[in-house]
Amino acid sequence: MQLMFLGTSAGRPTRSRNVTSIALSLPEPQCGFWLFDVGEGTQHRMLGSKLKLNKLERIFITHLHGDHIYGLPGLLSSRGYFEGAGPLTIYGPQGLRAYLDSIFNLTGVHLGYELHVVEITEGEIIADDRFVVEAAELQHRLPSFGFRITERPLSGQLNLKRLAELGVPAGPLFGKLKRGEDVTLACGTTVTASDVVGKPHPGRVVTILGDTRPCENAVRLACNADLLVHEATFAGGLEEKAAAYGHSTFTQAAEIARDAGAKRLVVTHFSSRYDDEEVAELANGVKGIFEQIEPAVEMAEINVPRLPLTNS
Amino acid sequence: MQLMFLGTSAGRPTRSRNVTSIALSLPEPQCGFWLFDVGEGTQHRMLGSKLKLNKLERIFITHLHGDHIYGLPGLLSSRGYFEGAGPLTIYGPQGLRAYLDSIFNLTGVHLGYELHVVEITEGEIIADDRFVVEAAELQHRLPSFGFRITERPLSGQLNLKRLAELGVPAGPLFGKLKRGEDVTLACGTTVTASDVVGKPHPGRVVTILGDTRPCENAVRLACNADLLVHEATFAGGLEEKAAAYGHSTFTQAAEIARDAGAKRLVVTHFSSRYDDEEVAELANGVKGIFEQIEPAVEMAEINVPRLPLTNS
Repeated sequence: MQLMFLGTSAGRPTRSRNVTSIALSLPEPQCGFWLFDVGEGTQHRMLGSKLKLNKLERIFITHLHGDHIYGLPGLLSSRGYFEGAGPLTIYGPQGLRAYLDSIFNLTGVHLGYELHVVEITEGEIIADDRFVVEAAELQHRLPSFGFRITERPLSGQLNLKRLAELGVPAGPLFGKLKRGEDVTLACGTTVTASDVVGKPHPGRVVTILGDTRPCENAVRLACNADLLVHEATFAGGLEEKAAAYGHSTFTQAAEIARDAGAKRLVVTHFSSRYDDEEVAELANGVKGIFEQIEPAVEMAEINVPRLPLTNS
Repeated sequence: MQLMFLGTSAGRPTRSRNVTSIALSLPEPQCGFWLFDVGEGTQHRMLGSKLKLNKLERIFITHLHGDHIYGLPGLLSSRGYFEGAGPLTIYGPQGLRAYLDSIFNLTGVHLGYELHVVEITEGEIIADDRFVVEAAELQHRLPSFGFRITERPLSGQLNLKRLAELGVPAGPLFGKLKRGEDVTLACGTTVTASDVVGKPHPGRVVTILGDTRPCENAVRLACNADLLVHEATFAGGLEEKAAAYGHSTFTQAAEIARDAGAKRLVVTHFSSRYDDEEVAELANGVKGIFEQIEPAVEMAEINVPRLPLTNS
């Protein structure tokens, strides 16, 4: 899994930073990707990247502020030009459907693919064979969601040597064992899955939060996450200003990551008052609170590797 | 007056071209500018240019297709960040107000300046002391307007030598004469304005059309224009396809300029199937129909000079 920050600016674009959008590229074999927020110009950013719109599977909208959704109508329209663009589902707060419906009706848009809009409430919003996604409400000036993406564990490796010793023939039985089912051979011997299959490889947890003041749900969603993406609109010391606008400071983002026991924190959504150098300094300045902090960099890829497997 | 093409692509952005927006910079002393259409990413294009949003005076929307208006909500929101951003008026087809109202209501926008939305019909939509703007409907898949911008003539130069001979004292009388009013001096002599003021300098005419099939109103709006901006979505030979989508070919744009007696034609709104080199070739290919044709180039400035004045 990789994250790519297509925009890291709060409120409006600057010469070096675009407004918010984050792409989460999924592991093989699907190799598709999801988007979190679609600020204006997201489709423009993607033109020069590896992200192709026909590989976009899902979109998650944290909240309905313009700097997070004004790129949505254009991106959805352009997606229709891409060969093989299949159905697409968008998850977001109440009002998202009215937003898209009113724009598409007034501007004469007919998408060439199925679009499903899911207006979400708190709880598990996706649970398929690859991922579980949980949404919870944060604290902003209008309803804003955070998402905890949990990858399902990868089943353990088959112990081929042991299988040969037990006389298990290669074929469908291997699949059953890999899925954790015990099997009985033709000779009557029962082979226990746990005896021939290694430990499952734990899935990764990535938490991506919308605009928010520091809040309990942020900590809960980020609990032990491999990676937390938290906004840091203002410098530490501007907590009062941040609270008034429903935002967090660098200090507060670091505290949330620490309190949640997250392994790594990427901050984003920087006020346009800070240039890239200042942003880097602000992140460095709170390493005393949370060492594994880094500022999101436009178009840079962040790899979220699986933890190395400890064999039993 | 200068035109700058902030986007020249039809339908969707490409790596080298953005979707439609055209800036018309006004002559001194105002030095403001107007925008014609605001495709997604227009505000991004402006970040690196001389165009500052607090100098934006008016916006004209040709029609409500997404590639011409999806940049509007973001640009209007960002304008609020600019110091000295005064009232702004947007002219466009019916539905424009509903488009902005529904988006701004759902996304919690409160602009920090006065915004006036004028839903237009055919006819003179502006007549102030500097410009007359006429709108007329073109032929597209939904209502699409073209605009003829006529600069008021600049009053002629005062003949200072003659004024001295006639004994006219410098001061308010000069202004009256310049405005074409005859004046009577203290000694009783009447001075005729036409005797001491040169010919007025004719104003420029710029015609900017929205998406359209070739049509009579295009010719009428462009009649003798100093500059015509006409769409040329497809190559000559694809007239049937162009008609089906409500567009024109390079050939048809050249024919309109010729039939209107325009002095110069800039084509824009190119299908993403053509790269910049092909666009240049397509424009060259119709010079036999209209010699003074040129393709719009992203972010390049086009000067529209006043005609040299012939003194009487």
